[in-house]
Amino acid sequence: MSSPKLDNKVLQTMRDMAQKLRIHSITSTQAANSGHPTSCASLAEIMVVLFFHQMKLTLRHPRDPSSDRLVLSKGHAAPILYAAWAEAGLFPVEELRNLRKVDSDLEGHPTPRLNFIDVSTGSLGQGLAVAAGMAYVGKYLDKADYRTYVIVGDGEMSEGSVWESLHFAAHYCLDNLCVIFDVNKLGVLDVFAEMENLRERLEAFGFHALVLNGHDFDELIKGFHNAANTKDRPTALLARTIKGKDFLGIEGCDEMHGQILGSKAVAVIKRLQAMISNPNARLIPKKVDKCGRAPEVEITNIMLCAPPDYRLGDSISTRQAYGSALAKIAANNSRVIALDGDTKNATYADKLRNAFPERFIECFIAQQNLVGVALGATCRRRTVAFVSTYAAFFTRAFDQIRMGAISHTNVNFAGSHCGCSIGEDGPSQMGLEDMAMFRSIPGSTVFYPTDAVSTERAVELAANTQGVCFIRITYPCTTVIYNNDEKFAVGLAKIIRQKPSDELLLIGAGVTLYECLEAAEQLEEECVTARVLDPFTVKPLDVRLIIKHGKMCGGRILVVEDHYQQGGLGEAVLSAVADYRNFVVKHLYVPTVPRSGPPAILLDMFGISSRNIVKASMALLKK
Amino acid sequence: MSSPKLDNKVLQTMRDMAQKLRIHSITSTQAANSGHPTSCASLAEIMVVLFFHQMKLTLRHPRDPSSDRLVLSKGHAAPILYAAWAEAGLFPVEELRNLRKVDSDLEGHPTPRLNFIDVSTGSLGQGLAVAAGMAYVGKYLDKADYRTYVIVGDGEMSEGSVWESLHFAAHYCLDNLCVIFDVNKLGVLDVFAEMENLRERLEAFGFHALVLNGHDFDELIKGFHNAANTKDRPTALLARTIKGKDFLGIEGCDEMHGQILGSKAVAVIKRLQAMISNPNARLIPKKVDKCGRAPEVEITNIMLCAPPDYRLGDSISTRQAYGSALAKIAANNSRVIALDGDTKNATYADKLRNAFPERFIECFIAQQNLVGVALGATCRRRTVAFVSTYAAFFTRAFDQIRMGAISHTNVNFAGSHCGCSIGEDGPSQMGLEDMAMFRSIPGSTVFYPTDAVSTERAVELAANTQGVCFIRITYPCTTVIYNNDEKFAVGLAKIIRQKPSDELLLIGAGVTLYECLEAAEQLEEECVTARVLDPFTVKPLDVRLIIKHGKMCGGRILVVEDHYQQGGLGEAVLSAVADYRNFVVKHLYVPTVPRSGPPAILLDMFGISSRNIVKASMALLKK
Repeated sequence: MSSPKLDNKVLQTMRDMAQKLRIHSITSTQAANSGHPTSCASLAEIMVVLFFHQMKLTLRHPRDPSSDRLVLSKGHAAPILYAAWAEAGLFPVEELRNLRKVDSDLEGHPTPRLNFIDVSTGSLGQGLAVAAGMAYVGKYLDKADYRTYVIVGDGEMSEGSVWESLHFAAHYCLDNLCVIFDVNKLGVLDVFAEMENLRERLEAFGFHALVLNGHDFDELIKGFHNAANTKDRPTALLARTIKGKDFLGIEGCDEMHGQILGSKAVAVIKRLQAMISNPNARLIPKKVDKCGRAPEVEITNIMLCAPPDYRLGDSISTRQAYGSALAKIAANNSRVIALDGDTKNATYADKLRNAFPERFIECFIAQQNLVGVALGATCRRRTVAFVSTYAAFFTRAFDQIRMGAISHTNVNFAGSHCGCSIGEDGPSQMGLEDMAMFRSIPGSTVFYPTDAVSTERAVELAANTQGVCFIRITYPCTTVIYNNDEKFAVGLAKIIRQKPSDELLLIGAGVTLYECLEAAEQLEEECVTARVLDPFTVKPLDVRLIIKHGKMCGGRILVVEDHYQQGGLGEAVLSAVADYRNFVVKHLYVPTVPRSGPPAILLDMFGISSRNIVKASMALLKK
Repeated sequence: MSSPKLDNKVLQTMRDMAQKLRIHSITSTQAANSGHPTSCASLAEIMVVLFFHQMKLTLRHPRDPSSDRLVLSKGHAAPILYAAWAEAGLFPVEELRNLRKVDSDLEGHPTPRLNFIDVSTGSLGQGLAVAAGMAYVGKYLDKADYRTYVIVGDGEMSEGSVWESLHFAAHYCLDNLCVIFDVNKLGVLDVFAEMENLRERLEAFGFHALVLNGHDFDELIKGFHNAANTKDRPTALLARTIKGKDFLGIEGCDEMHGQILGSKAVAVIKRLQAMISNPNARLIPKKVDKCGRAPEVEITNIMLCAPPDYRLGDSISTRQAYGSALAKIAANNSRVIALDGDTKNATYADKLRNAFPERFIECFIAQQNLVGVALGATCRRRTVAFVSTYAAFFTRAFDQIRMGAISHTNVNFAGSHCGCSIGEDGPSQMGLEDMAMFRSIPGSTVFYPTDAVSTERAVELAANTQGVCFIRITYPCTTVIYNNDEKFAVGLAKIIRQKPSDELLLIGAGVTLYECLEAAEQLEEECVTARVLDPFTVKPLDVRLIIKHGKMCGGRILVVEDHYQQGGLGEAVLSAVADYRNFVVKHLYVPTVPRSGPPAILLDMFGISSRNIVKASMALLKK
């Protein structure tokens, strides 16, 4: 398995290309008047080898499912990535001058507004998880030949998420994954000892790890060749590089991190140009092979393989219904997958695992990697992914979810054990800010189904809905209130109890919807009738229906939720009626950190039980 | 440095104590009808050695700043921790039967409602960061003899946060920290190879790591002795243990994870009792030595050492003012510290570092550990901590911040680079959900100062405010609008422009307050006068002032913020007026993922510029 020898002419062209990429990195950041040219410079030879020797690409279709993937985890080096694609022929190099301009998609950090970017990067330490998700799908679902490369900066190695992903990649033997660490850190006393220590860490985490000179084409080519021929474990190339490499008077100068070259640019460019022997020589990326291609897949119009099958009045938790629905849509479409962080028997994601073990990815107790892997698994429309854990523990991956939205992801999230209705386990396990988190995600859809029937439909809808979807599911059993043939849609609420005499509108979801129904019963004994609305989706909220029925109820709305005050259902309703005078909204919510105790007692203690609703309703009637 | 030899009688009493703790773990979870007795059982000998041989404790004052610390990172093993404190004499063992009861503080997972708990655990992988923060303070600020112990479950080792903290602890040579890994994982084919691999990982991360039998008193005592005598690096004891150890018919049975023993309990307890040779023998924890004690510190009434010193009309960013204020309160109180995640020159936390280098903790690009270390550093009222990074990157540590609130922490957070006003760096770097996140934290205070004067006062107030404080600071320069002697208080807003004829109330903060002022100027040209309000704190919001002036302006309120729609200033205002009829609120916010571009263009493009405000105001006047 000796690596192919390059002839000297090609090698010289590659050297020239590296300097061209350096020059582009300078000219584009100069034009933008901001950016990180020195962090680009350390990557020049690595980029040349990747683009013009290693990766197999389809230029007319950069997101060809069969082509190799590259994730630039150190997103601040975007200019050299853009330069490489331009030199490869995807778009004119002149466009590089539009870097960071408001009318150009060549943004400060990469986003999928560009057709050659799969995921946004720029929040450090996330690219490896995404790449691992791509590689997992490549190896186990697509069973295709494409390889996944990811470039990680050494600063990112402090992020724990990187170590979660390294563990994951090694555990699943992702030998189609190659991680390039761009170790351009300065000020280290003994760089060789440091590199050796990094190598030890990576080997201990199960990687095949090589230390090499990231500016030496021979070493790089050998390293990548070695990686491609290593079976059953992923490879890490620890590339020793220099920030600002070949930048006259700047090379290795720490103060220049994140700085443009300014007045020094002219001299630096001149020097780089002088190092180029043939400015007109071109290099072309390798094409994708005819064999070993990824299969064509269809991930639209996903349906439950059978409609919900419950009886009115059945008592079943929505997390159980989540698991059932997951297995049902997986039976309908072979590209539905589930991922979970060691809570699969609590979220009932194990129902999919039991039915289709090859489509379940256990991600252990490592939620950042869990979410990142899902982002990667769904790239290039390879899969429809459902990620589950306790609602509270998605807070661990808020940054990954946030970046997911910037990445145009369609990943679906299911958070169980929401609210103080979980009881004795106590506040650390209670999701009480999950709706605030997921509502704040741009373009997200937040489902909060109340019973098993609506939960199954929420799962089906989420599978077909663009953007981040979140399904809030509940720990305790709740009563089935909808018929199996009830129709549900995103943004459409349900009035589930009404009389012409209604004087106020109660809005609840999950456990609090039942408290609303109970309260309505009790109010009727006081000769007050109340309408009850089930929002089904908290985002988008059915503003039309809320306004209509709110008006019919004298403008009196009472919202009750098993969530903190901020950012949840209550504030969503307030946003819905903001534009209208003459509404008065009373909001019941969990006002402080709850505690361990029986669910029913906690609901009452923290102000969201039917008793609290009745009391608040009576006060509201005076408004 | 041979370890002290125990006499046989003491050793037998320790063995007896271990079984007593196992019995308590069973009886308490049986009484609660939930909990994790088998995860407790693996820890029994470790707990006995810690409590009755290793740790120096002050029973009448469990949070004695000079006593040793213990963090139970695997919080689900709470029952055995409670049992150890009870057997040590802190409270009657009978109370253990109240586990998880709503009127007992012996919650399902530990919280500082108990006087012997420093921080809440139960969200896995967080305890080590907290312990590292305690150890850092012990070694470098208190310069005291107390040691910090933390018990980590093997499942937690998947969490990247653990590896962030290991790196941190080794980097800072925290030889006063001892990490006990309770490796009770089942189903591993070759447990010895697995233990050796864990040891390699820990050694590669800079730890002194020992593998031992976690049920063998001799090995444990030697291990702790070895740890105490290891200088310049922290020690990890990798304790090989068995889940459900000594539980007849249950030991090593994976299905029993997280299950109570139920009908099996009687037989198991009977067997454990039979293993106890002297049920009446007692053990007593070691007392804290007279020497090597932690210094007394005073962390109340913290003030700027000099008042703000700006001129009206000066242009300066609030992040710069943050750094200045930080250095000023640090000059006033020697216990003010700052922590940052490799962004200190952008957040200006380096102003404190330059003045007081020993009180600045560089936590690298590892935000979860950053927050956890701060939580630990503030425990037992040792320090007043300010943690800074980009606002967007606090999303990385949402779970730690959430757990911080459950831990009653007083840590202060400063998030810079908020909103699309940062410009060209693009959306990955923009904090656009930070207010939603920090508002959702129970008991939090959210400052959003507009100019340098108010920022300095925000820092001073935060230092003296209980609970989580968040200060939202801005990248671009803004104009000083307040006099240096202006008074600020939590929950008090300012009317900064008004006329009797005002027809609407504009509310903005940070960059959007200036857009409001500009819009008010433009509106005046259209013969419309608008009042402008600066909230100063978004939580608590000055409801009284908003209602009062909102009413004076015909009930018309326009809120504009450089943040997404959900959970920020706009929804806070909506919550404030929810209870009142006859208000109409128009909310301008960033409606979608922004992009790279010049700040002023982005503000306009995403609908929050003065031009957008004027347009929305004219529409609002018709309501």
